[in-house]
Amino acid sequence: MADNMQRARRNSIVHIAEQRQNLASLDSSIIDRLPSYSAALFEAKTAMRLTFEDIARALGRSEVAVAALFYGQARASPEDVARLTELLKLSPETNVAAQMMGFPDRGRSGPMPPVEPLIYRLYEIVQNYGYAFKAVINEKFGDGIMSAICFHSKVEKEVDETGSPWVVITLKGKWLPFSRF
Amino acid sequence: MADNMQRARRNSIVHIAEQRQNLASLDSSIIDRLPSYSAALFEAKTAMRLTFEDIARALGRSEVAVAALFYGQARASPEDVARLTELLKLSPETNVAAQMMGFPDRGRSGPMPPVEPLIYRLYEIVQNYGYAFKAVINEKFGDGIMSAICFHSKVEKEVDETGSPWVVITLKGKWLPFSRF
Amino acid sequence: MADNMQRARRNSIVHIAEQRQNLASLDSSIIDRLPSYSAALFEAKTAMRLTFEDIARALGRSEVAVAALFYGQARASPEDVARLTELLKLSPETNVAAQMMGFPDRGRSGPMPPVEPLIYRLYEIVQNYGYAFKAVINEKFGDGIMSAICFHSKVEKEVDETGSPWVVITLKGKWLPFSRF
Amino acid sequence: MADNMQRARRNSIVHIAEQRQNLASLDSSIIDRLPSYSAALFEAKTAMRLTFEDIARALGRSEVAVAALFYGQARASPEDVARLTELLKLSPETNVAAQMMGFPDRGRSGPMPPVEPLIYRLYEIVQNYGYAFKAVINEKFGDGIMSAICFHSKVEKEVDETGSPWVVITLKGKWLPFSRF
Amino acid sequence: MADNMQRARRNSIVHIAEQRQNLASLDSSIIDRLPSYSAALFEAKTAMRLTFEDIARALGRSEVAVAALFYGQARASPEDVARLTELLKLSPETNVAAQMMGFPDRGRSGPMPPVEPLIYRLYEIVQNYGYAFKAVINEKFGDGIMSAICFHSKVEKEVDETGSPWVVITLKGKWLPFSRF
Amino acid sequence: MADNMQRARRNSIVHIAEQRQNLASLDSSIIDRLPSYSAALFEAKTAMRLTFEDIARALGRSEVAVAALFYGQARASPEDVARLTELLKLSPETNVAAQMMGFPDRGRSGPMPPVEPLIYRLYEIVQNYGYAFKAVINEKFGDGIMSAICFHSKVEKEVDETGSPWVVITLKGKWLPFSRF
Amino acid sequence: MADNMQRARRNSIVHIAEQRQNLASLDSSIIDRLPSYSAALFEAKTAMRLTFEDIARALGRSEVAVAALFYGQARASPEDVARLTELLKLSPETNVAAQMMGFPDRGRSGPMPPVEPLIYRLYEIVQNYGYAFKAVINEKFGDGIMSAICFHSKVEKEVDETGSPWVVITLKGKWLPFSRF
Amino acid sequence: MADNMQRARRNSIVHIAEQRQNLASLDSSIIDRLPSYSAALFEAKTAMRLTFEDIARALGRSEVAVAALFYGQARASPEDVARLTELLKLSPETNVAAQMMGFPDRGRSGPMPPVEPLIYRLYEIVQNYGYAFKAVINEKFGDGIMSAICFHSKVEKEVDETGSPWVVITLKGKWLPFSRF
Amino acid sequence: MADNMQRARRNSIVHIAEQRQNLASLDSSIIDRLPSYSAALFEAKTAMRLTFEDIARALGRSEVAVAALFYGQARASPEDVARLTELLKLSPETNVAAQMMGFPDRGRSGPMPPVEPLIYRLYEIVQNYGYAFKAVINEKFGDGIMSAICFHSKVEKEVDETGSPWVVITLKGKWLPFSRF
Amino acid sequence: MADNMQRARRNSIVHIAEQRQNLASLDSSIIDRLPSYSAALFEAKTAMRLTFEDIARALGRSEVAVAALFYGQARASPEDVARLTELLKLSPETNVAAQMMGFPDRGRSGPMPPVEPLIYRLYEIVQNYGYAFKAVINEKFGDGIMSAICFHSKVEKEVDETGSPWVVITLKGKWLPFSRF
Repeated sequence: MADNMQRARRNSIVHIAEQRQNLASLDSSIIDRLPSYSAALFEAKTAMRLTFEDIARALGRSEVAVAALFYGQARASPEDVARLTELLKLSPETNVAAQMMGFPDRGRSGPMPPVEPLIYRLYEIVQNYGYAFKAVINEKFGDGIMSAICFHSKVEKEVDETGSPWVVITLKGKWLPFSRF
Repeated sequence: MADNMQRARRNSIVHIAEQRQNLASLDSSIIDRLPSYSAALFEAKTAMRLTFEDIARALGRSEVAVAALFYGQARASPEDVARLTELLKLSPETNVAAQMMGFPDRGRSGPMPPVEPLIYRLYEIVQNYGYAFKAVINEKFGDGIMSAICFHSKVEKEVDETGSPWVVITLKGKWLPFSRF
Repeated sequence: MADNMQRARRNSIVHIAEQRQNLASLDSSIIDRLPSYSAALFEAKTAMRLTFEDIARALGRSEVAVAALFYGQARASPEDVARLTELLKLSPETNVAAQMMGFPDRGRSGPMPPVEPLIYRLYEIVQNYGYAFKAVINEKFGDGIMSAICFHSKVEKEVDETGSPWVVITLKGKWLPFSRF
Repeated sequence: MADNMQRARRNSIVHIAEQRQNLASLDSSIIDRLPSYSAALFEAKTAMRLTFEDIARALGRSEVAVAALFYGQARASPEDVARLTELLKLSPETNVAAQMMGFPDRGRSGPMPPVEPLIYRLYEIVQNYGYAFKAVINEKFGDGIMSAICFHSKVEKEVDETGSPWVVITLKGKWLPFSRF
Repeated sequence: MADNMQRARRNSIVHIAEQRQNLASLDSSIIDRLPSYSAALFEAKTAMRLTFEDIARALGRSEVAVAALFYGQARASPEDVARLTELLKLSPETNVAAQMMGFPDRGRSGPMPPVEPLIYRLYEIVQNYGYAFKAVINEKFGDGIMSAICFHSKVEKEVDETGSPWVVITLKGKWLPFSRF
Repeated sequence: MADNMQRARRNSIVHIAEQRQNLASLDSSIIDRLPSYSAALFEAKTAMRLTFEDIARALGRSEVAVAALFYGQARASPEDVARLTELLKLSPETNVAAQMMGFPDRGRSGPMPPVEPLIYRLYEIVQNYGYAFKAVINEKFGDGIMSAICFHSKVEKEVDETGSPWVVITLKGKWLPFSRF
Repeated sequence: MADNMQRARRNSIVHIAEQRQNLASLDSSIIDRLPSYSAALFEAKTAMRLTFEDIARALGRSEVAVAALFYGQARASPEDVARLTELLKLSPETNVAAQMMGFPDRGRSGPMPPVEPLIYRLYEIVQNYGYAFKAVINEKFGDGIMSAICFHSKVEKEVDETGSPWVVITLKGKWLPFSRF
Repeated sequence: MADNMQRARRNSIVHIAEQRQNLASLDSSIIDRLPSYSAALFEAKTAMRLTFEDIARALGRSEVAVAALFYGQARASPEDVARLTELLKLSPETNVAAQMMGFPDRGRSGPMPPVEPLIYRLYEIVQNYGYAFKAVINEKFGDGIMSAICFHSKVEKEVDETGSPWVVITLKGKWLPFSRF
Repeated sequence: MADNMQRARRNSIVHIAEQRQNLASLDSSIIDRLPSYSAALFEAKTAMRLTFEDIARALGRSEVAVAALFYGQARASPEDVARLTELLKLSPETNVAAQMMGFPDRGRSGPMPPVEPLIYRLYEIVQNYGYAFKAVINEKFGDGIMSAICFHSKVEKEVDETGSPWVVITLKGKWLPFSRF
Repeated sequence: MADNMQRARRNSIVHIAEQRQNLASLDSSIIDRLPSYSAALFEAKTAMRLTFEDIARALGRSEVAVAALFYGQARASPEDVARLTELLKLSPETNVAAQMMGFPDRGRSGPMPPVEPLIYRLYEIVQNYGYAFKAVINEKFGDGIMSAICFHSKVEKEVDETGSPWVVITLKGKWLPFSRF
């Protein structure tokens, strides 16, 4: 009988665990590098079991942009704040809302070179293919850069003919030619 | 009359210059960081006024891959070598062909963090959006990485409704979940 | 009816948000790098909805200098302290006033190379044009430096014929020739 | 009499020296970091005793841009190349012309942090006033950056009422707001 | 008599000490770099005198994987969490369980280059034999990498004929060839 | 007919290329970091189409050790030198033989952190699993290190049930306990 | 009338401010890098409006040495402690006294390269004139060093004929020749 | 009379100070880098006025080893713990004892390169004489290393004929030849 | 007799050696970091057995300034060039003269932190006493810096009462107060 | 018969190899970091099969000092030069002799942190035991440093009771107390 109870309890933990396991949360050890509203937003997101996809849909924005906002790397518009406050049931008294509309102090969410394997792979692509991208872009566009400011990005999932999933990241930035002066 | 000659000569230089100016070439100061065949390939490409698009078409590969090959960041297959030898009229006596099929010693074409503005913008995207990409990818795929090895990339040009060009870079890598052990 | 209330509440948040969104505030994650009066000053500025332009006018100083003072990078004169105390309604009991007149421990507000995109662009200008500035300045002035101590700076906005805004930063430093000894 | 000759010879050296001393030339120890045409351009400039002001006038460009071009940090247009070839009497057989129109591999003319005192002062301005610039620009323009690509710069000399010279550097970059996505 | 008591007390401390001394515990000075559940797990492990071998057996996983999980470098499955909760008698109310199933923010448990002598020896092997491994792997497998994601590892003890113990670490990763694109 | 000749020539290049492509060779850009005999050894190896497996068999040593010897990271015994001289038909007049028996100046074959993707993966394993290895080894062996000097290593290929190849690296080092003093 | 009061209050603040403004105090953001007695000493010094000159006179030591002692870079003798305790009215119960006599853990008061402009100038002197100092010292003294341990230093003010103040720093260290062994 | 009291009080402080001044204590600013028992041990040592020589005698170990143990760089045996607990009158309830027997996480007590002058001198010896030591050791012992694990060290004082004291540090490590494999 | 000759020859070498040993010369391994005229100047100085003191007297400048000029860290005036050309019997045809009057590219004569023990001691003084200098200078002069540009320096020898030599370096820089703007 | 010849030839190579294998020589890849006489000295030493012990005996100096001299880290006296010239049969015409008596530019023979395993172990001793050495030395000597300038060192071999060799390095430096000023 004790066994039954134990099995039941274990199943219940597994059940709870499974529900939570598809949600990105905030690693406690990087909180200090982020603006203080990051922790509040992630906590609410976790409590409400919302994915970035859910939140992006509610805000009419891209998932990448919304995740960047949670990490303090993008700015919320007043409308975003209003919707997030509603969706995440943030107390209007806290100054989370006001803070989210501050001008972000970008670029400090993680170390560079990245030590996180997923992020390192992106860095490695820049390291290995940087000059190749430059050469191809120069030939197609001339002398200039792809803006990282006037910029959109999205992440998609594709499944190939063998059933294997592929990650597809699109980086789209406005072309900025060097001024002649 | 001297004026006419001077003007004619200037026009001729301008003419030559214009022809060459859409071609990516190799900055002499980074030659030491690259395998020795890089200089040979770029020299032939410049001499024959070929773009990476031209060469990619001849090889049936992506422009990014071909440029990477020129920078010593990708390996040529025997078929690639045969076609490049023909296309660039490389002397078969040189060991450029053999070298191109060596196993590349990747990652040393430029400094990290990049100092070249175009390449820095890509690095900045990783710096600013790295954790956002991780969070979104984790929620869509689970615990793992996007491979930078089993990986394709391409660069495209889009023009928006105002006539402004945009650079679109697609990064496509196979999803690799962390093994359980 | 609930809808109406909800819409009203959202509008109210949007309204508050809009009011605040043009104010620079202090990112909570850099507070530790700054002198303790920085947080107090920014808090008061935010509470009173003052821009640096407002404060600069009250102090008879440049906006850049005032912002530098808030970040602990410049020293307040007794007169500045008196005016700031009044303007920001700082409690005279706190030692914010005394601290602002301490000798600043400059240079620690952010990492170098900067990771913040706006600040990085300034760094990149030094990286790319540093030797060009040196060569031009040497030819115009001789062997020496532009002082960064006996130095003024201002930020202005210009709008070009197409209606696009441009940022104009003026750096003005006294010429200091190397002494002959 | 020997004395007279010696004095004459010394005067002649002093004379030659004075003529040359207002010209920026290329330090031999940084040649390796620059594209190969840099040395050729500086050599011709020195031989012909031209200042960047002279060359800028001939090219209809800014002195800073011309110096940047000499350091391999800016690209020459075909028209620039034609004029430079004429002005500096470059042999059209050399491929200096072609190289100058290549896409520059920017950012490698000197180490960062700069060790050259003049350039270090500019770096120090970014280090000390970076966040102040950001705060003031954010309040004046919103969330974005000043472009370092769509960018002009000039160096001017001012003399104050006491007769002391001041260096005035103007940095003017297009305002680029962060895209909402 | 006092002597006897003292000796008894000392023996008792020695006894306690011996019991504990074969257990890896968490150095208090690295707690800040790890997710908050690390401290909770190590504390429970120490309190219950469990080795990683004990825990690995209970979870049906490798010791290395379990230790990695304790250091926040691997993710727990729901089943792992259920078993760990039981085994370590973690209070189900704490959110240790939920956190262990978060997506790990890997790579930050220690500095690189490592300063810990044991870990440095592994780093030194990569430093000294890195190119040798690459050359041998390239010849055996072609152009690609050994995955560190689709990866298993184990640690074994061997004793040679002289009775000396040897550490045997096996690194087993899937072969990933570079894609042709 | 010209077509036939061209096809024949291409086939011949492809043929040559295929023969060479399984051989690790020396990237020209790292020669400066290695002892001078490295280039000589690799050249002879390439000329004679020998794999490290071939050479290892002839020397009665492990492939990893032989590759390390080629990269200047291991010392050759007199017998190794005699056999290598024979096998690679090195001219006895050169001092390659003598140099190979010098005491290696280890650790400089590549940068750390590695930029080569294959070698980086090994580094990443140390970064991610370093503390896990330490904890497991400490529990199994006590307080000490695995020697990287009194050390063997080998690389093997395994194929799993789905036909996928796996790389298996074995690191075997003598256990060295910290001395008590 | 309110005006009068306001003016009076402002004058009073200006007055207080002026009194304090010639005193070096401790920037709150570097406290963590210093021994805990630093904060206590600076606090007492500020409260009592003492300059380092005042304190140096009381202790019979150099101002530089006293300031170094306050920053935890020099050791206090028992006599120094007794005098400081009296002068600064330190409570004898605190262990400030005992701590000041501990062996200092020098070198950690600020980052190197220094970011503080005043300290950077000293660093720049070493960077620019280091080899010149070495050459001149070698010629005057032989092969050895100027000790930084058996070392005195002082700061003086000179005013030149135009009335401009100059800072004069004297570094005086015992000559230590390299031993022959 | 007040004078007498003051003199008496000063003498008493000097007296206390002298007693304490020969004891190494823990700089408060490095506590965070050390395991938590370090502070406890140093506090007890200071309170009881024990030198490392006293403690080493009680433990039958070398002073260097005991100091390393206090800094968390060496492991205590159960017997060491028992004796330390007695000697330092540590409360057996605290887990200081247990922690001292944990496996140390070595190498993090100070920054490298060292900034502390005494420690820097040791580093400088490695920097200046490293290759000389290697060459001499290689000629005396062959190809291998001096172990830093199977290692003893001691510090002694010698006085030369002029009465000057010299520090003599002995580093004694087992010779480990590189394995042939 | 052979002995006599050998002794004679040895004495002659010792004699030559002694003559040269008080001259600073240029280490061949740093030539690449210096402008090309450095090697020429040092070579002439060595050939003519001139000390910096000799040269400084001839030029009417400080020894430190002259040594800095030889290391490419200071600029020669036309008069300096004329005198150096005479004194060192430089061929007027070489462009050493012209180069010496170029604008120096300062700061690259050696690595920072310095590895040369003599130069490191100066660096260590900045590291250890930097904040002490700042505090004392601030109290004596206000908020500003000691200029390293409008700057003189000299090296002197003092002998104390015990006959021991001391190095005295004087750093004298103009006081530059921060501008108020 | 051919077999016999081959065997004979192999034996001869083994024989030559064995003769040479106990001599430290100069790795070709570090020559650039050393003064030019280093290569000449090592070449002569190798040609004449001399160990550092042989040379040290001839010069009446320590082996460590002699090896340091060969690596450009110590200065030769005129007498040393005379003896080395004789012993190594250096041509008196070369300026090796003169160069050896130059003032060494120390500290650049290898990278720090060291990558060579033997040298790294010495560095690791400083890293792990640095604070322990400091604490013990402070307690034995007071506040000061062990000089690395007024310094001797030697390397000895000891064999323990089990026949295992141990390396014993003695570092002996004069005690320098911090001056009181």
